[in-house]
Amino acid sequence: MLYEINEKALRLEAQGKKMIRLNLGDPDLETPPEIIEAAYEAMKAGKTKYSSSYGENKLRAKLAEIHGVKPENVVITPGSKWGVFASMYLMLKGGGNVIIPTPYWTAYELIAKSIGAKVKLLKTELEDEWRVKPDQLEALIDKDTKMIILNNPNNPTSKIMDSKTLDGVVEIASRKAVTILSDEVYSTIAFKKTKSILEYNSGHKHMLTTGFSKTFTMTGWRIGYIIASKELIDNITRLNQITINNVPVFIQEAALKGLELKNRLASDIRDEYKERADMASKILSKDGLAFTKPEAPFYVFPKRPGLDSEKFTLNLLDEGVAIAPGTSFGDYREHFRISLTAPREQIKVALEKICEALE
Amino acid sequence: MLYEINEKALRLEAQGKKMIRLNLGDPDLETPPEIIEAAYEAMKAGKTKYSSSYGENKLRAKLAEIHGVKPENVVITPGSKWGVFASMYLMLKGGGNVIIPTPYWTAYELIAKSIGAKVKLLKTELEDEWRVKPDQLEALIDKDTKMIILNNPNNPTSKIMDSKTLDGVVEIASRKAVTILSDEVYSTIAFKKTKSILEYNSGHKHMLTTGFSKTFTMTGWRIGYIIASKELIDNITRLNQITINNVPVFIQEAALKGLELKNRLASDIRDEYKERADMASKILSKDGLAFTKPEAPFYVFPKRPGLDSEKFTLNLLDEGVAIAPGTSFGDYREHFRISLTAPREQIKVALEKICEALE
Repeated sequence: MLYEINEKALRLEAQGKKMIRLNLGDPDLETPPEIIEAAYEAMKAGKTKYSSSYGENKLRAKLAEIHGVKPENVVITPGSKWGVFASMYLMLKGGGNVIIPTPYWTAYELIAKSIGAKVKLLKTELEDEWRVKPDQLEALIDKDTKMIILNNPNNPTSKIMDSKTLDGVVEIASRKAVTILSDEVYSTIAFKKTKSILEYNSGHKHMLTTGFSKTFTMTGWRIGYIIASKELIDNITRLNQITINNVPVFIQEAALKGLELKNRLASDIRDEYKERADMASKILSKDGLAFTKPEAPFYVFPKRPGLDSEKFTLNLLDEGVAIAPGTSFGDYREHFRISLTAPREQIKVALEKICEALE
Repeated sequence: MLYEINEKALRLEAQGKKMIRLNLGDPDLETPPEIIEAAYEAMKAGKTKYSSSYGENKLRAKLAEIHGVKPENVVITPGSKWGVFASMYLMLKGGGNVIIPTPYWTAYELIAKSIGAKVKLLKTELEDEWRVKPDQLEALIDKDTKMIILNNPNNPTSKIMDSKTLDGVVEIASRKAVTILSDEVYSTIAFKKTKSILEYNSGHKHMLTTGFSKTFTMTGWRIGYIIASKELIDNITRLNQITINNVPVFIQEAALKGLELKNRLASDIRDEYKERADMASKILSKDGLAFTKPEAPFYVFPKRPGLDSEKFTLNLLDEGVAIAPGTSFGDYREHFRISLTAPREQIKVALEKICEALE
């Protein structure tokens, strides 16, 4: 349905309709000019050749320092999505299953299916504040379970896993020798501290995938990274060698510039999204919708009992607002996801139209 | 061995040794400044967002026009290598085998093995001018054969398939309903016309992978494309959606600029490599080495009966010259590959050292 919504939105726009697009996770903000200049300088300096499938040493060293690991535990990827695909491809192409809590980012399941892995969904509920229940997780694990995917903070709920729940999940996974792939792409710009999987990771049993897209508004640049055991990093690099070869060096230089300016850039972006989330929470609360308050950019995932969100979101397009139905994130027909990825005035107008349409 | 050679070369360089590096296919020429400027302009214009997994319509339309197909038959990929991987992944992950003539680019076999496909090698010989023998090809095809890979012009021989041989190969493949994947990444800058697989392709049974790396000296930019049936293009796009997502739009704009300036840029690059190939042919002939004269950039693949090219190329590193042993391209121990990817004076010095070392 996500693609259907997006296509109808584009079609209506082509017909001249004004559309407020809150259906995707693509920020309206621009890539900071310092990052663009860094890419340009690198291109002019000839950084346009084949390069290492591990990524540039400078960038790996900087990321290792930030995360408290060794450079050998870092590989640069063309986006965090490639990190997820490459890891699942290597760990699951020979068979097995992966456990994915829902609501979830659709790509996880599509990747698993493409590779031929079985998927076991673990449903969480708004009423439990989207907590994964450790006993339910443990019951799902069988001898063929190779991986558990966590998305922390979560898309679409913007909820951060509380420490105690994460402790429980990691304890079970470690005891059962199942790898946790923790996709933490929203964590740097989250509104409160996200406990990373790396805090549990002395033996590198578990792994992190993340990227620069959200933190530095670099979605279309396609750059991310994985932190994992040296063995897995070496295997991913061998996969890179026969697929994408390398992330362009000038893009790696741009990302490095982002890291240098991280404190300022990330906090500007975080502040803007915090404002938007607060405004959205206020408007949606007035209308009596149920949701957990966003703890990270960019999403709110409200519930209206009895709602058919597919019909609702398709019809809403005719009002000039594009959002995503809950069914795109699992078995959540009564929910819908609003991406706060437009200027505040537009978000305000859109939220009011959503509330009107719900009446 | 390719990686071993490259690592030893880097190690010796780090120790202060001067090294002429003719071991890889990475041109010494720079990306033309017009292409860099086009990328920069696009970045500044905000072309830094998520975009279509098919690639940009403008670029697809331009490529469709060049190749006489419809835009729906074109998908943009992060390099031609991704085109090969994605096609093989979709066609062979369920099982089957792929036929690869040798000498070959190592990546083909590594990709097949990663996916779990069986590889059948079809050996060609210098003495036959590297011709594929149709009867040998036909004998290799069985009910599980899904694909034949042609690399035309070929790496490492720089030989173009003659029309008659290609006719024969296509006739057999079509009759046996086996898809030909034709990697034509060197064809635009070849020294004589290369007959493309697309000339046989009214039903889009066969497919082309290629890229911008060689034609426009854009190796590290990672951009290429596939031309195939609409059905396969749609499937590759779905794979792109769950892996690389999109090639950065500013890189696609840069490639488009390259196409606009194609005649001048490609012919400058072709002329330079033709000069180098002629010079190399002259020097190597004097030394009585056997080889076919390069018909395309960037390689020569000479033979010296009785040579152990692995030992030869490793020892040659101590003379300050890096080249690749024939064993990196199949069962060719008596051959070695020289990449003409350095300034002419350096190539001349290197060739003389090679000839000396052979004495």
